[in-house]
Amino acid sequence: MSIDPRDPVAVAQALIACRSVTPDEGGAHALLERLLAPLGFEIHRPVFSDEGTPDIANLYARRGAGEAFVFAGHTDVVPPGDEARWSQAPFSGTIVGDELYGRGAVDMKGAVACMVAAVARALDGGGDLGGPVAFLITGDEEGPAINGTAKLLEWAHARGERFSGCLLGEPTNPQALGDVAKIGRRGSLSGVVTLPGLQGHVAYPHLARNPVRELGPALTALMGEPLDEGTEHFEPSNLEVVGVRSGTGAYNVIPGDAALQFNVRYNDLHTSASLMALIAERLDDAVGAGNYALFFERPNAEAFLTPQGPLVETICAAVEVETGRRPALTTGGGTSDARFIKSYCPVVEFGLVGQTMHQIDERVAVADLETLTRIYQRALATAFG
Amino acid sequence: MSIDPRDPVAVAQALIACRSVTPDEGGAHALLERLLAPLGFEIHRPVFSDEGTPDIANLYARRGAGEAFVFAGHTDVVPPGDEARWSQAPFSGTIVGDELYGRGAVDMKGAVACMVAAVARALDGGGDLGGPVAFLITGDEEGPAINGTAKLLEWAHARGERFSGCLLGEPTNPQALGDVAKIGRRGSLSGVVTLPGLQGHVAYPHLARNPVRELGPALTALMGEPLDEGTEHFEPSNLEVVGVRSGTGAYNVIPGDAALQFNVRYNDLHTSASLMALIAERLDDAVGAGNYALFFERPNAEAFLTPQGPLVETICAAVEVETGRRPALTTGGGTSDARFIKSYCPVVEFGLVGQTMHQIDERVAVADLETLTRIYQRALATAFG
Repeated sequence: MSIDPRDPVAVAQALIACRSVTPDEGGAHALLERLLAPLGFEIHRPVFSDEGTPDIANLYARRGAGEAFVFAGHTDVVPPGDEARWSQAPFSGTIVGDELYGRGAVDMKGAVACMVAAVARALDGGGDLGGPVAFLITGDEEGPAINGTAKLLEWAHARGERFSGCLLGEPTNPQALGDVAKIGRRGSLSGVVTLPGLQGHVAYPHLARNPVRELGPALTALMGEPLDEGTEHFEPSNLEVVGVRSGTGAYNVIPGDAALQFNVRYNDLHTSASLMALIAERLDDAVGAGNYALFFERPNAEAFLTPQGPLVETICAAVEVETGRRPALTTGGGTSDARFIKSYCPVVEFGLVGQTMHQIDERVAVADLETLTRIYQRALATAFG
Repeated sequence: MSIDPRDPVAVAQALIACRSVTPDEGGAHALLERLLAPLGFEIHRPVFSDEGTPDIANLYARRGAGEAFVFAGHTDVVPPGDEARWSQAPFSGTIVGDELYGRGAVDMKGAVACMVAAVARALDGGGDLGGPVAFLITGDEEGPAINGTAKLLEWAHARGERFSGCLLGEPTNPQALGDVAKIGRRGSLSGVVTLPGLQGHVAYPHLARNPVRELGPALTALMGEPLDEGTEHFEPSNLEVVGVRSGTGAYNVIPGDAALQFNVRYNDLHTSASLMALIAERLDDAVGAGNYALFFERPNAEAFLTPQGPLVETICAAVEVETGRRPALTTGGGTSDARFIKSYCPVVEFGLVGQTMHQIDERVAVADLETLTRIYQRALATAFG
């Protein structure tokens, strides 16, 4: 069956039909290669490996020489859950009324289809893209993200590939196309505070030291005061204690220690290093230096903000023309592969409406696929200024 | 081999040789029957059962009719642990220097041996005990204490057995014979406080409610203020939070609930019922009624105090004559079978020096066995005064 690359609905349906639940490629990259190669793209499909994680298929496509404008995305999807609970089979790509159903419809095979269609339409009838364009597509965004975009960028950089800016197609809009473009993300830092005590029999508390008595002060130190009040583009940084563990389970034993697990989502007023110091300082004040142990997981997502500039303006203008609304520029939500891309070039995220992402009956308005294709095509047309 | 019942060291050695780790009788009750029957005691050895717990052997011996003075104790012992770490085999009853080694030497086969010897000496050469005397011996003091003293007392009471007072031979002395007699015990109450929250993704705290934020106030409610200041004979009541649990283990999930496990050791200013009400009241104030769930384990040890009177005086006087010191009257430490006996008659605990109880190389000074025998014999001589 031949698929018209200019038709985002047909491309989205074909992508949804690929069972590409992380870490499986499921035929999605083979399909993209079949669509992009005839459009003049040079295709690379490197597979990356790492100890303890599955091998991951990735796709890099380039057309034209020099600093490329990059469309970035992922073809892997989260599992469908109980398929019997879907009103349409999750990998069928069925259209009911004006909606296209399927796992990945909005996160983010739909957006990848719009990128392909935007490029295909721009080239229609012998047109030109106005400059070099690349696709950076991974199969490991929903998984550990170890063998995905991070390694694909390293690989491309080592080949001499350079980028002027990147449009990442994550579903950024809460309600309707045009709501929100994301120009950064909060950082994430995790760790554990351990409070040592002295285990003993509950009938002889003077022979023991209950670490639970220090839990209150430690909790107040961690969560009592805000880390900041937010910035123009960022919500306030926030620390949540996500776990507390103390005790043996027995009623007659005073615990030997207590542990608090925490996670911070932080804005660009902090770095992981400055936060580590701040948390230690607050604990020093609350429970005393030397009265606790502090462990941090390896930071894997620093906060970042894409500076206002031509890329942000290109995308906002394209959205405004096609939807009549200028998107809000935000930085909320979880992490995305933008955290890797931002080290190579400015990156802005704009995609579909995320309401049904990761849910049973994930679906996208067919009309949104057409509108997003136009937005992407318009952004591309102005990207080379 | 014939054992002289007047010799507490020989009786203690023979008892230690019985491997009566709870719930095993190990021959200990058969030995006591062999020693007490010839002294004119009528012997009963009821075995009690309950669903989910092992059957337990018990021994009840009586001599003479009417309200009996009771010697109470247990022949079961805690496991020896790694026998290779003992300097003498734990069931050999070896004497090295002036100390007798063995599991149960002080807790409390040694004291049971002294009780037998005291009675045997009193009867020596055709003497009389001055009144009815009973032995109340269980094999389940170190275990769940379900098929032990509690049921033996019920059984005896149903038979019409009545008691004037009871001397329980638990190791009460911290340093030297004569330090301490125990005239009551604290009660024990256990429970769990659950704080409900709303689970959610750590990146979207406004969509969740972290129950950990209520942990500090709940901990302060439970442990912040003393329950009382103690009484003449009791230490202050004390609540320890012995366990805290919250979280899934994952850094990106705000927990759905938090739970605090606690135990109270309380004096006779409280009952389990009054404490339950007090704890609920404090939690109501701290986190709000309806914002927590409170569960109590079934109370199994109310606080009690044996009133000053003839029994206490009998034992204190006997200790003072034999050791030159009047024992302090205390109520500290863990629970004992006195919590069951106190419902039938006044009970005082006095036994050996507890320093090595439950430890590797548990041992007793041979001289203490002689002194304790004299104390018990003297107490018996004045018990019917």
